Amino acid sequence: MNTSAPPHTPSPAPDARPAAWLDARPDTACHGGELAFDFPGLRIGVAEYPLGPTGATVFHFPQRAKAAVDVRGGLPGTYNVDVLRLGYDYPLLDAIGISGGSWYGLQAAGGIAQALKEDGLRSGSFAELANVAGAIIYDFGDRRLNEIHPDAALGAAALRAAREGFFPLGAHGAGRMAVQGHYYGLPVHSGQGGAIRQIGAVKIAAFVVANPVGLICGRDGRVVADPSSLPPGLTHIQQLLSALPIDRNAFGMAEASAWSGHARPNPVNPANTTISVVVTNARLPWSDLQRLALQVHGSMGRAIQPFATAWDGDVLFAVSTDEVPLGSLHAIELGTLASEVMWDALLTAHTPRAVRAPRLLPPAALAGLQAGFGFDRHSSLAVHVAGEQLTLEVTGDRPVYGLAKGSRVDARLLPDGRFVCSGPGAGALRDGGFCGDDGQVDAMVVNLGVWQQFGRRLPD
Amino acid sequence: MNTSAPPHTPSPAPDARPAAWLDARPDTACHGGELAFDFPGLRIGVAEYPLGPTGATVFHFPQRAKAAVDVRGGLPGTYNVDVLRLGYDYPLLDAIGISGGSWYGLQAAGGIAQALKEDGLRSGSFAELANVAGAIIYDFGDRRLNEIHPDAALGAAALRAAREGFFPLGAHGAGRMAVQGHYYGLPVHSGQGGAIRQIGAVKIAAFVVANPVGLICGRDGRVVADPSSLPPGLTHIQQLLSALPIDRNAFGMAEASAWSGHARPNPVNPANTTISVVVTNARLPWSDLQRLALQVHGSMGRAIQPFATAWDGDVLFAVSTDEVPLGSLHAIELGTLASEVMWDALLTAHTPRAVRAPRLLPPAALAGLQAGFGFDRHSSLAVHVAGEQLTLEVTGDRPVYGLAKGSRVDARLLPDGRFVCSGPGAGALRDGGFCGDDGQVDAMVVNLGVWQQFGRRLPD
Amino acid sequence: MNTSAPPHTPSPAPDARPAAWLDARPDTACHGGELAFDFPGLRIGVAEYPLGPTGATVFHFPQRAKAAVDVRGGLPGTYNVDVLRLGYDYPLLDAIGISGGSWYGLQAAGGIAQALKEDGLRSGSFAELANVAGAIIYDFGDRRLNEIHPDAALGAAALRAAREGFFPLGAHGAGRMAVQGHYYGLPVHSGQGGAIRQIGAVKIAAFVVANPVGLICGRDGRVVADPSSLPPGLTHIQQLLSALPIDRNAFGMAEASAWSGHARPNPVNPANTTISVVVTNARLPWSDLQRLALQVHGSMGRAIQPFATAWDGDVLFAVSTDEVPLGSLHAIELGTLASEVMWDALLTAHTPRAVRAPRLLPPAALAGLQAGFGFDRHSSLAVHVAGEQLTLEVTGDRPVYGLAKGSRVDARLLPDGRFVCSGPGAGALRDGGFCGDDGQVDAMVVNLGVWQQFGRRLPD
Amino acid sequence: MNTSAPPHTPSPAPDARPAAWLDARPDTACHGGELAFDFPGLRIGVAEYPLGPTGATVFHFPQRAKAAVDVRGGLPGTYNVDVLRLGYDYPLLDAIGISGGSWYGLQAAGGIAQALKEDGLRSGSFAELANVAGAIIYDFGDRRLNEIHPDAALGAAALRAAREGFFPLGAHGAGRMAVQGHYYGLPVHSGQGGAIRQIGAVKIAAFVVANPVGLICGRDGRVVADPSSLPPGLTHIQQLLSALPIDRNAFGMAEASAWSGHARPNPVNPANTTISVVVTNARLPWSDLQRLALQVHGSMGRAIQPFATAWDGDVLFAVSTDEVPLGSLHAIELGTLASEVMWDALLTAHTPRAVRAPRLLPPAALAGLQAGFGFDRHSSLAVHVAGEQLTLEVTGDRPVYGLAKGSRVDARLLPDGRFVCSGPGAGALRDGGFCGDDGQVDAMVVNLGVWQQFGRRLPD
Repeated sequence: MNTSAPPHTPSPAPDARPAAWLDARPDTACHGGELAFDFPGLRIGVAEYPLGPTGATVFHFPQRAKAAVDVRGGLPGTYNVDVLRLGYDYPLLDAIGISGGSWYGLQAAGGIAQALKEDGLRSGSFAELANVAGAIIYDFGDRRLNEIHPDAALGAAALRAAREGFFPLGAHGAGRMAVQGHYYGLPVHSGQGGAIRQIGAVKIAAFVVANPVGLICGRDGRVVADPSSLPPGLTHIQQLLSALPIDRNAFGMAEASAWSGHARPNPVNPANTTISVVVTNARLPWSDLQRLALQVHGSMGRAIQPFATAWDGDVLFAVSTDEVPLGSLHAIELGTLASEVMWDALLTAHTPRAVRAPRLLPPAALAGLQAGFGFDRHSSLAVHVAGEQLTLEVTGDRPVYGLAKGSRVDARLLPDGRFVCSGPGAGALRDGGFCGDDGQVDAMVVNLGVWQQFGRRLPD
Repeated sequence: MNTSAPPHTPSPAPDARPAAWLDARPDTACHGGELAFDFPGLRIGVAEYPLGPTGATVFHFPQRAKAAVDVRGGLPGTYNVDVLRLGYDYPLLDAIGISGGSWYGLQAAGGIAQALKEDGLRSGSFAELANVAGAIIYDFGDRRLNEIHPDAALGAAALRAAREGFFPLGAHGAGRMAVQGHYYGLPVHSGQGGAIRQIGAVKIAAFVVANPVGLICGRDGRVVADPSSLPPGLTHIQQLLSALPIDRNAFGMAEASAWSGHARPNPVNPANTTISVVVTNARLPWSDLQRLALQVHGSMGRAIQPFATAWDGDVLFAVSTDEVPLGSLHAIELGTLASEVMWDALLTAHTPRAVRAPRLLPPAALAGLQAGFGFDRHSSLAVHVAGEQLTLEVTGDRPVYGLAKGSRVDARLLPDGRFVCSGPGAGALRDGGFCGDDGQVDAMVVNLGVWQQFGRRLPD
Repeated sequence: MNTSAPPHTPSPAPDARPAAWLDARPDTACHGGELAFDFPGLRIGVAEYPLGPTGATVFHFPQRAKAAVDVRGGLPGTYNVDVLRLGYDYPLLDAIGISGGSWYGLQAAGGIAQALKEDGLRSGSFAELANVAGAIIYDFGDRRLNEIHPDAALGAAALRAAREGFFPLGAHGAGRMAVQGHYYGLPVHSGQGGAIRQIGAVKIAAFVVANPVGLICGRDGRVVADPSSLPPGLTHIQQLLSALPIDRNAFGMAEASAWSGHARPNPVNPANTTISVVVTNARLPWSDLQRLALQVHGSMGRAIQPFATAWDGDVLFAVSTDEVPLGSLHAIELGTLASEVMWDALLTAHTPRAVRAPRLLPPAALAGLQAGFGFDRHSSLAVHVAGEQLTLEVTGDRPVYGLAKGSRVDARLLPDGRFVCSGPGAGALRDGGFCGDDGQVDAMVVNLGVWQQFGRRLPD
Repeated sequence: MNTSAPPHTPSPAPDARPAAWLDARPDTACHGGELAFDFPGLRIGVAEYPLGPTGATVFHFPQRAKAAVDVRGGLPGTYNVDVLRLGYDYPLLDAIGISGGSWYGLQAAGGIAQALKEDGLRSGSFAELANVAGAIIYDFGDRRLNEIHPDAALGAAALRAAREGFFPLGAHGAGRMAVQGHYYGLPVHSGQGGAIRQIGAVKIAAFVVANPVGLICGRDGRVVADPSSLPPGLTHIQQLLSALPIDRNAFGMAEASAWSGHARPNPVNPANTTISVVVTNARLPWSDLQRLALQVHGSMGRAIQPFATAWDGDVLFAVSTDEVPLGSLHAIELGTLASEVMWDALLTAHTPRAVRAPRLLPPAALAGLQAGFGFDRHSSLAVHVAGEQLTLEVTGDRPVYGLAKGSRVDARLLPDGRFVCSGPGAGALRDGGFCGDDGQVDAMVVNLGVWQQFGRRLPD
């Protein structure tokens, strides 16, 4: 496993064009850590809408592959998976498309199929139909201030960017806006993860877009998330489970418990999902592949606690390229090993990415600014700049990071154009800045960094 | 039931603009017979790409509805149906999207969800997510010369055209290019059908996109298709089943049997599917709705023989708007009645539609024409006009209506600009003409009528 | 097909020993019509408790067979079928046990497994475990006056009586007490049926225990049951469906409709089930076998209307001995042919059986008899004989053939010891007589014939 | 949790009658630790055949209960569970029967249903049918020298012994002969476990018959089994998984790995299964109960590693008595808590039981004994006593505890009549003695203690 970039490193050249952000063009570059590996016949691509941010991840099998699926969550969103349940013991699957955007994001899988056809790899002939299965995660709600979702164009872009030996870790692809921990009232960012092992000629790769209600923990039971995002002293999953739930508000209920007195986020829409993919090159009959799917999916309850709840939509795909014999490896061993590889994959699902920062306008360009900025039809802020002081007021009909309409947040403008919020209500809004061409203020950005949100300036 | 238009009536004004045909803009008008009925809370819309032709049909429940699904076919293509299997006993479903285009057409369902969000009816908030389920039929192969398929734009158009009390019968919506009868080597056009009954306050509506491997028959066992499309003397389904299969070529095998000596189509890609929707306003627990789905789906083997084969992808949705009590009607009676209504619906699945004819260029404009026309990247014809005689030669890498590359077909040009093929190989090519602006030949059309196919003029 | 005995022929020697009836010993003889056929590797046996009557039917595959299962009914009772759903593509199944007795009868399948082990054919070693799947029909309620049900001993007896080339038709085995038609308020006896076809080397056998809520009809739509058991003039299934339901009491509702004025049975407990078995020697992957199961099960809605309702527990097993290639037969053709064979099988499911009559005591032995007879802990009759007149009074806490406690029925004693009921309430009680050794009255029998019921004399 | 008896305490009076052992009469006493708890409406009973030993455990809900089922293993054995899958949202379930005996043991569930009817609690009337679901574990193979299995009589006995507030822990009921650890080539005895928690008025009880391929571990990852049964230094589940598999013979393969050089058992027939039951009194719609089943079943992969493999037949039942509202508890919290309770239950699944020792004949009665003893038709030993020395020779066609036919083991006779094996091949045979009346040697026993095996003296 090779993660090639240090975390949170800003990219050298900030991007000066707000259009680059505000345009909803698929971004298929990988801005950060990735898993490099060797698995011929498996091509992976990601594509993202930075403005969401949200994204899609494609697993493409140019030679087709045999596949099985296991749906365990209570709120699944699946695309064309029924045909994978019928026990067909031959390579049928062209690609898997995983995306954000909840049920709206299922279109990405359709875009993959269409691209396979448009690119001449598949057609409408019966034997050449593109078989693409898909699944989605929920990444709206408290995660962001807009409802941009993956679509066919994004799926197609991810497919066309796919290549062998490559899987971006962390806040990439379908995991671009993944979070975990709503169960505890502790939403912390996660992402997508991957790992691979080889035993003799048999390869076992595991990939996961981890957006669970629960929290990811290591083999020692320690929660993988940054301790600063956890309640003081509660870093072991058993401690957290014993206090369950830490925050009754997580489920819209009144009394907090262990969390009380601690400044905490205010989660809404605790809808989640973990989508997993196990790929092996071992030759397996379909029935064994289905067993593999069930065994690995069940094992994931070790690494994510709780797992596969009514508010998750968990789906696992097991895929075989059917190339090498199992040899001395028994099918149950394969399942047990794959379960360990999946745990390894989950441990990488939080890897931070490098930040592509927007170029902010300097304080001089903001003097006396009084304007509204819309993140979405539902979410907007009114901004007033007075010297070094800013006031932000929530004006849309939806809360902004938990701040209700009419809430005001004070911020201080720094020399580099960044503003930093303060006061009790600052919460997840945190910081931000303004962008524009020629000194015109066209947009604002808040919550600078990996999950930053852009608002367009509204007409006066 | 009221079918408001006589069959095959040409629309008054032929459409002069080839662009209207060649542009892939959704057409949401209903050009022919329709079922008029009263079912508040159920909105239906269709949208089509005339150039395919192919289409989509939307069932929209503005108040949401409770739903169950039954998948019986061997090659299903389904969209977001897993959540309907989990026994949730409350209205969850916003809409069902059915479309042509095989697995590529699943995008239409995604477009419906997106349109619900864009139009402000649904959003990304957890409780407001648009729940759209979908399924597709295969309508490529021997049906047409291109691979245009429904996409998100078509689904959205169908949703936005949806209204109450309206369901186009026959070659409309998802049934635009439906056929039946491949099992017997007898592909004949079918379409979508609908019927409704009311017992007291309880309404039972059945809708079906009938594209089965088998043939539809009436309660007397007679095949509904035009007898001229059947082998002489074989008009009862039991006769056809006894000779089964009439045409071994239907399954790619060598010897024909009863059909031998009869000029017959040469079916390819016998992939089919029947998608059904039962809607009632009766209050039913989810478990009863699931029973309704199974009972009605099973009953359809009476009206379609054979049914739910390995080469069909049959799916049935049972939906309740949960408004009125069953009263003296027992749940099993509801299922039995619904089965009869579904049979009624299947009997309307062949209703012809009025034809919107293109305006053809007169013979004078075609003098000496020597040009290629591409229907698709795979299918093209070279045309040569000499006086009243035309020659058409298959030039693409795919057969044109069963005519292999290099095949030549003679045709005769009529005064109205129409050409009529003749000779042994004319087959399904039948007739055609040429379109264009300002006397320029821009396109050709073959197989004039409901299922006509357009080819663009290729650069010399 | 060869049914070797004429219907309703009394066996030559009436059985004098009431113990032969009252003892619950398995009877594995076939007293009537049977299907003779050639299918090496398929052994079939039946065993019955005459006192019920109820029974079990075993399908034994000494070389094991590949199997799939399809459950379509709303009230299934299944035994060990989950392992058949997992796609294992190798011979796993030893036997199928079908029995009466509703959920209580599932023990019969267990008895088959145990007998396989006791007889040394299978053991507790992992690779030698007996895999027996099972399903049951409901045959209590208005069918009989006791609740005797198949158990392990009966299943074992059926297995040990199994042989090749033999299948008893009609009121035999699991179909011993089968009825059909509760949907219409028309319960008429059915039974088990079978048929077989061979195409080249491929054999397709279909067996069915037909106990449906609906009625069995022929390919012309005519109901197969004796017309005298149907409402006058309603003999076509479409007529019956149009009047649906004929008897609202069928579902415990108040008003009869078309049936009013006609003397009719009073059905209670309209719980039903049809269990089907398709066996082929064609080599099929498991996935094709599953398709076969679904296609044939769906097709049965033609021959049984309505079918697979919420009150049926319909299950179909598809089994392959995996011996010969399909050859020129396509898998879909196999399914279509098998569907026809299953319809043929259903048409034999009513074949009457010969009656083994008990030897009745002569009138002289009954003079002045005043005694109670218990059919079951719930059902009993008080009998008073005065000369040639008998009075029967219902004394138990359950109705006797629909006659409530306290009901009195008059009957007349014939010289041969038989009594014949008369008057409005006679109903299904019909006729009967008394049995005993040495002139002692030990038991009574009512409803003489195939479905006769025995009551033991109660202590005074 | 209250386990009322100390482990391994011999019962005060050894049982002198060998008949008490050799007769296959159900034993429903609890000879050892039990869980005492308060859950009105849930009655639990166990019954065992000491001679196996094997047993059954019944969960009886006199008021019926709502139920859902989740099957995850690759080799399940289930009884009448299909009706629990249909989403019926009302109390349907009477009882769950779990038993040993692999597929042969499914009869125990049938016996429960029959007993409910015989005892007048249920009947054959449609609304009063006893609904009993069941599942089994594999407890043959290397576990014991006979193939005695639970049957209907044992199930009935367990039902009739059922009472509230009682659950025997360890080698009791269906867990009488449970083992774990075959995956690692480390079969060690486990048993059944139980635990309960209450939050407000909501009770959550978890019961499990733990017979997994994997090993049970605690929340700290330590394997619960006695360290002496593990390879030196490998006591943490992660260590064991890293060395996987310790013993390639576990899967019938040649080379051992980490285990080499260590005296170890020789597992055969590594077929396993864990059957689980979650019971709550919280009112839940069926769909939530199904979610509960999936969430808890998935969580068990934490406590059993590996879990739900192809060689397990894992089944979980989730049951609600539907009595109290969830109150402030969220349905997902219920699932998460239930998962913890299930882990607690698994931690008790090894609790030893008190031993009911047979009275052994004194050495004087054995002088010069030369006799054969048959444990089963397949397993027997020839014994020769010469002074204080015994020789045991394997004579049957199956290995005895891994000792092949012809193997000889030396043992030494102690003053109390016990013999103790020694030498390299002693293995699991360990120790034993002889029983009989009036000084006659009628039987022998080996492997004295909880899992002792009895052989009958064979005719000379």
